[in-house]
Amino acid sequence: MTPQDIASRDNPLIKQLRALAHGNTAYREQGRVWLDGDHLCRALLARGGRPALGVFTAAGWDQADDTLQGAAARNLRVPDALMAGISTLDSPPRMGFVWTLPAVAAPDAQAPSVVLDRLQDAGNVGSILRSAAALGFSQVLALKGTAALWSPKVLRAGMGAHFALRLVEGLDAEALQALQVPLLVTSSHQGDWLHRTALPWPCAWVMGHEGQGVSEALMQRASAFVRIAQPGGEESLNVAAAAAICLHASASARL
Amino acid sequence: MTPQDIASRDNPLIKQLRALAHGNTAYREQGRVWLDGDHLCRALLARGGRPALGVFTAAGWDQADDTLQGAAARNLRVPDALMAGISTLDSPPRMGFVWTLPAVAAPDAQAPSVVLDRLQDAGNVGSILRSAAALGFSQVLALKGTAALWSPKVLRAGMGAHFALRLVEGLDAEALQALQVPLLVTSSHQGDWLHRTALPWPCAWVMGHEGQGVSEALMQRASAFVRIAQPGGEESLNVAAAAAICLHASASARL
Repeated sequence: MTPQDIASRDNPLIKQLRALAHGNTAYREQGRVWLDGDHLCRALLARGGRPALGVFTAAGWDQADDTLQGAAARNLRVPDALMAGISTLDSPPRMGFVWTLPAVAAPDAQAPSVVLDRLQDAGNVGSILRSAAALGFSQVLALKGTAALWSPKVLRAGMGAHFALRLVEGLDAEALQALQVPLLVTSSHQGDWLHRTALPWPCAWVMGHEGQGVSEALMQRASAFVRIAQPGGEESLNVAAAAAICLHASASARL
Repeated sequence: MTPQDIASRDNPLIKQLRALAHGNTAYREQGRVWLDGDHLCRALLARGGRPALGVFTAAGWDQADDTLQGAAARNLRVPDALMAGISTLDSPPRMGFVWTLPAVAAPDAQAPSVVLDRLQDAGNVGSILRSAAALGFSQVLALKGTAALWSPKVLRAGMGAHFALRLVEGLDAEALQALQVPLLVTSSHQGDWLHRTALPWPCAWVMGHEGQGVSEALMQRASAFVRIAQPGGEESLNVAAAAAICLHASASARL
């Protein structure tokens, strides 16, 4: 139970952690993620995840409850300055976990899903993951060109939603052919109004690139187009806002 | 029409622009904002705004149409490196405007509104402004402690929505007493389901602090509480996602 003390920033493990915590795609090389701060750590535990490593400041260790202290097979205790070097948060946390990512799954053909078509902004991607988890969607499929799902910024914006979802990234548009749920796409100029549409369940909502929207290839695969009422005129919605509206429409139609 | 060439980064005007473009609250001191890139500039013009100053790179000036070249009473032409120093964008733009902010208005007591109660994240605030403009809300009221509405990050995330809205910031909760529209607040544990509620119009939606939610003082002023269906269980929504859902519910009820 007693944590191992490490004080040197040149320690090879600390260097690895720093690379993991700061790199957008370091998780792909290392096969694991850094969970920055206790909110993400507790979200992992709440979903039954088991961290490989716990890293605490001295104060963090003293304040941690048995659940946090006992979660990982191995714990490190590091000086505040070392934690500040690992963390990407403005206020460095008192703890973090390293979690080994599950093997990449193939898409579940029947799961209620959100498809991300080359979304660029990590904050948007994280917000959509959060909406998906809250609104009853169990899978997010990211096409090639989408921001890395397990990057530090997406993890932070996701607020733990990652652990509630089946996440598959790096997909080609062709991979969506295997899906057995209808693909729904929002459009500004065709389709029925979202709030008057009988939405199928399960379904997959497609959300497109912030500037270019959904690709032509995906548009052709759409089962239906829906329009979001926008009485404000030509103003457009942020893609994460549009996603929230669509996913909520599906969620409320089920109640 | 010919722009004035400025090449020195020590030019006092260039220094002012840099401070304006980079400071979160420099607009309050200078009484004007820097609009970074042609999207925001065109959004201003589309709403009838007149910039005080246009700043172009050499290529930007050559490519600008008559509308952009003729918008401001005075134009500067600067080297690319100077524009890169002014801009906060990763890819420095070819142009920007300086626009004198209108005098701060008092809240319009009857306008369909969004109230921001100490929201911290500039991306959230910008996204909510965008949703408000698109979904038919004409006013955003920011209580003290909310991220600065005209800061560079909020401007960027707002994508031009700022110019379509009546924006009032720095308000005390007491100022909301003057509003003649009902205050609607989302709650996780009380009120009717949003999608089954007959929503009043006009109304004011209150969105609260990312961690703490809506303050007790505002809760007590609420005319009604509504719940967002969240079949995903305990997961929570990002505040900008929740705002989009609520504002869209109001918008679609009007169609």
